[in-house]
Amino acid sequence: MPEPKFALGIDFGTESARALLVNAADGSEVATAVYEYSSGVITEALPDGGTQLPAHDWALQDPEDYLRALEQTVPACLKEAGIDGDQVIGIGTDFTACTMLPTLADGTPLCMTDAFRAEPNAWVKLWKHHAAQPEADRVNETARKMGEAWLERYGGKISSEWFFPKALQILDEAPEVYQAADRLIEAADWIIWQLSGNETRNLCTAGYKAIWSKRDGFPRKAFLEALHPDFAEVIDEKMSRSILALGGRAGGLTEEMADRLGLSPNTAVAAGNVDAHVAVPACTVTGPGKMVMIMGTSICHMVCGTQEKHVPGQCGVVEDGILPGLYGFEAGQSAVGDIFAWFVRTSVPAAYEAEAEKRNISVHELLTQRAAAYRPAETGLLALDWWNGNRSVLVDADLTGLMLGMHLGTKPEEMYRAIIEATAFGTYKIIRTFESCGVAVEEIYCCGGLPERNDLLMQIYSDVTGREFKIARSAQTCALGSAMHGAVAAGKDAGGYDTIEEAAARMAGIRDKTYKPDAAAHEVYEKIYAEYDALHEYFGRGAGGAMKRLKAMKGVG
Amino acid sequence: MPEPKFALGIDFGTESARALLVNAADGSEVATAVYEYSSGVITEALPDGGTQLPAHDWALQDPEDYLRALEQTVPACLKEAGIDGDQVIGIGTDFTACTMLPTLADGTPLCMTDAFRAEPNAWVKLWKHHAAQPEADRVNETARKMGEAWLERYGGKISSEWFFPKALQILDEAPEVYQAADRLIEAADWIIWQLSGNETRNLCTAGYKAIWSKRDGFPRKAFLEALHPDFAEVIDEKMSRSILALGGRAGGLTEEMADRLGLSPNTAVAAGNVDAHVAVPACTVTGPGKMVMIMGTSICHMVCGTQEKHVPGQCGVVEDGILPGLYGFEAGQSAVGDIFAWFVRTSVPAAYEAEAEKRNISVHELLTQRAAAYRPAETGLLALDWWNGNRSVLVDADLTGLMLGMHLGTKPEEMYRAIIEATAFGTYKIIRTFESCGVAVEEIYCCGGLPERNDLLMQIYSDVTGREFKIARSAQTCALGSAMHGAVAAGKDAGGYDTIEEAAARMAGIRDKTYKPDAAAHEVYEKIYAEYDALHEYFGRGAGGAMKRLKAMKGVG
Repeated sequence: MPEPKFALGIDFGTESARALLVNAADGSEVATAVYEYSSGVITEALPDGGTQLPAHDWALQDPEDYLRALEQTVPACLKEAGIDGDQVIGIGTDFTACTMLPTLADGTPLCMTDAFRAEPNAWVKLWKHHAAQPEADRVNETARKMGEAWLERYGGKISSEWFFPKALQILDEAPEVYQAADRLIEAADWIIWQLSGNETRNLCTAGYKAIWSKRDGFPRKAFLEALHPDFAEVIDEKMSRSILALGGRAGGLTEEMADRLGLSPNTAVAAGNVDAHVAVPACTVTGPGKMVMIMGTSICHMVCGTQEKHVPGQCGVVEDGILPGLYGFEAGQSAVGDIFAWFVRTSVPAAYEAEAEKRNISVHELLTQRAAAYRPAETGLLALDWWNGNRSVLVDADLTGLMLGMHLGTKPEEMYRAIIEATAFGTYKIIRTFESCGVAVEEIYCCGGLPERNDLLMQIYSDVTGREFKIARSAQTCALGSAMHGAVAAGKDAGGYDTIEEAAARMAGIRDKTYKPDAAAHEVYEKIYAEYDALHEYFGRGAGGAMKRLKAMKGVG
Repeated sequence: MPEPKFALGIDFGTESARALLVNAADGSEVATAVYEYSSGVITEALPDGGTQLPAHDWALQDPEDYLRALEQTVPACLKEAGIDGDQVIGIGTDFTACTMLPTLADGTPLCMTDAFRAEPNAWVKLWKHHAAQPEADRVNETARKMGEAWLERYGGKISSEWFFPKALQILDEAPEVYQAADRLIEAADWIIWQLSGNETRNLCTAGYKAIWSKRDGFPRKAFLEALHPDFAEVIDEKMSRSILALGGRAGGLTEEMADRLGLSPNTAVAAGNVDAHVAVPACTVTGPGKMVMIMGTSICHMVCGTQEKHVPGQCGVVEDGILPGLYGFEAGQSAVGDIFAWFVRTSVPAAYEAEAEKRNISVHELLTQRAAAYRPAETGLLALDWWNGNRSVLVDADLTGLMLGMHLGTKPEEMYRAIIEATAFGTYKIIRTFESCGVAVEEIYCCGGLPERNDLLMQIYSDVTGREFKIARSAQTCALGSAMHGAVAAGKDAGGYDTIEEAAARMAGIRDKTYKPDAAAHEVYEKIYAEYDALHEYFGRGAGGAMKRLKAMKGVG
């Protein structure tokens, strides 16, 4: 029997990075390690010694955290598994996106140079950095005015979270940083540069975050120039038109990195990727019509189709962007678990906390147990799940949460249930919108923290949407997906695979337990969904623009 | 100097009765005593030994509690004041309404007879007994069909809380109780019967709760017969067409009652009255255009005018019903303090409770202090104050609460402030509706628990409505109003007064501190009110009937 081969997946999340070592033959997980970023999410002051950030919608990160994560988790996994570094054939990574930074020509982040250490715009802009809204507005306005065809691919709106608004913010606010930046690069690609020594750009972030497509490439110069004269050449000066397909091999490890991580320089390094997207094959999905939902603080919905379609409020359609040979569609709900966490933090009385503590369960679990006692419609409550705006299908960050139906006997667990139901209705709205635009959603696969933790929630999602929900076998779906891409980058001859389909067939799996819709519950929920949908239209697009007007008034009082 | 004379006021509330002994010359308060009803509000099982009530919208009381209240509080007041019973010239009472009961011809409540002790319909139906909704629906439907002119005086709808629906419920559900009932009577009048030995009927409850008017009397026989054949003669068989004006003298005390209470049989007993209405002169108000608001668990709004007007959603217009010679208008919000209490009970985290305890303040006070730090519009929140339905102006018990504007950083104190603001908008809606129908609301006087306790709330009400809010001097406004009516029943010769105006001028007062509107805040609130009003129309009358449809669906899941 030949010596077993392993693949490493590293999932760079918002608060921490996780490494997962799996057997390349069957995906079985042999070791895992987590590194919490020491600077975390930087929202108030830089780690340089205290430079204050200018506004509270900033969210930065420290690139040294990404390097420390590698150095701490990879050797820890090898040690835990008791294997030799030579047995690791490939390493794949996935990153939050768009998370981007300015660097020198050799890859050194500008925030690590003495000159720019105290300059907020020199640091990594995390995906949830929202301070580039004026720039996003300019991108959208200019694109509409100039009739840029690509706007339709992104549901008609470029988000402030994406690449060009963030790059433009650097130019607007800190032109000296912009000038000094030889490169502007996704962190997903920067980490590959650090591992392999090769600067590459991956197709996924290029397509979903930087308005690139296989057919049309990047936005034209005239458009970029219209945004700002000094922005005209941003692509050729600071980015790259050479785009690496998913599962592609960026190179081996540098000698120095191999040494620091205890791996062989021959270890294949896969092209960079996005956390959500690597989860798709890790849920066994390699074909069209199967939606993958990553359910956690927010939900990301991904589905592939055989044709390009324009769906209102989709986050983007990218050819080969999720799976090779297919059009990848992405949509999302900007807060899900975050709303439950908000509720537990702000709206649950002391008696509940005491009861949960006494029973040694979480407050979430207590609320869930009590909420499970209600039938659909029994609470009389209905909520709109817009606590963090609406990503799909309205693409409107200024929308806010709503709940109605409260009476003097309404209990916290009823409101908790209503919030769960609201997020399920939000997902249902996304599914129905895809379907009405000709993108089939026939099966649903889930991963992320929520399916792990909350039976009631999964059953409600199944009942609301009238669809079976299947759950990925791995609890570390993203890291597994990255490891699978590492195995593909290594290739069959090295003990890996030649395609992601083969890797998915061997390394991924789903659980025996699935959630099947209850027909009677679905029927009731269809009626409540009609009410949700009417409120969705009234407050989201109709005459009832109260949320946006109230938000605009916040400053006037 | 002649021996001082005193008047006694007894305020029969929902949970307890309060006696207040005041100096008849200037209204100064010399003694007070409270009796908590030992049976409280009966919602689940009768005190007979456990007969279960049929549904949870029942709310009954035990008439013996009313007698015990007299026997315990009156002697306690005399003792505390150290005065002689002979010095008490008059006794006035006020009661919740419609709170009604069936009795024998001698006044014995049927629930105190062996035959009917275990029969729920033989007990006192408290004002908030809501189980007569089917009967109320029948009353309204029949009145509309038969074109009864009086329907307009009650905003187009008779409430399930009022006299005829409750009487009809007895007939529908317990015909043997109905047959055995020689009298059907308001508790407000029953207590006068017990005190004076005379069965009287007061104008206030007759007008506001039993569809009586000075001009047209009670509903006609054909209408009553259409409700139920056995109901045709209810007025002549079980009620009375002789109606006693407010401030009228029902008699002296019976020898037996005088003896039990330690008073003289010469003590004048005033006609029965309603808790809210006696507060009007106790706030110094004796003329038109001055709204009196009793602000507590709910709000009652009363204002007098010189002409009969029909105002949407008013609870009734009764000639002489509040003040002699004027048309008394009444409106209301069915939950105010009750919503704040619900919020504190269900929606405030343990850390807040701990902080309040540490600082030795109530959770309400902590939330109020924190909520005071926000400017109008700053929370971005907006609520509809319909946790207990909407009494005025929509008269719809099936409406429910709503809040919108929540985001992931929303704090409990912001939601608490939004609820306060919502109740202020509800009051503003009532004021504007009165004014648009030709009933002037020029000044506002308040009493009740909320003005006592919550500075922020009072300022918000003033800012929202753009009006000065004056507060009654007495913290026991209802009991003081009753004592004033007792002094009027006694008359000038006995040391009292000949009119309520005279009594108000001498015995009532307002505080130095008033709440004046801040012009800038009012301007902002006008804009938010426009949003409130739009939601009010959409959910209350418009296409957005989600609340009612969801409530109707509660049973189907």
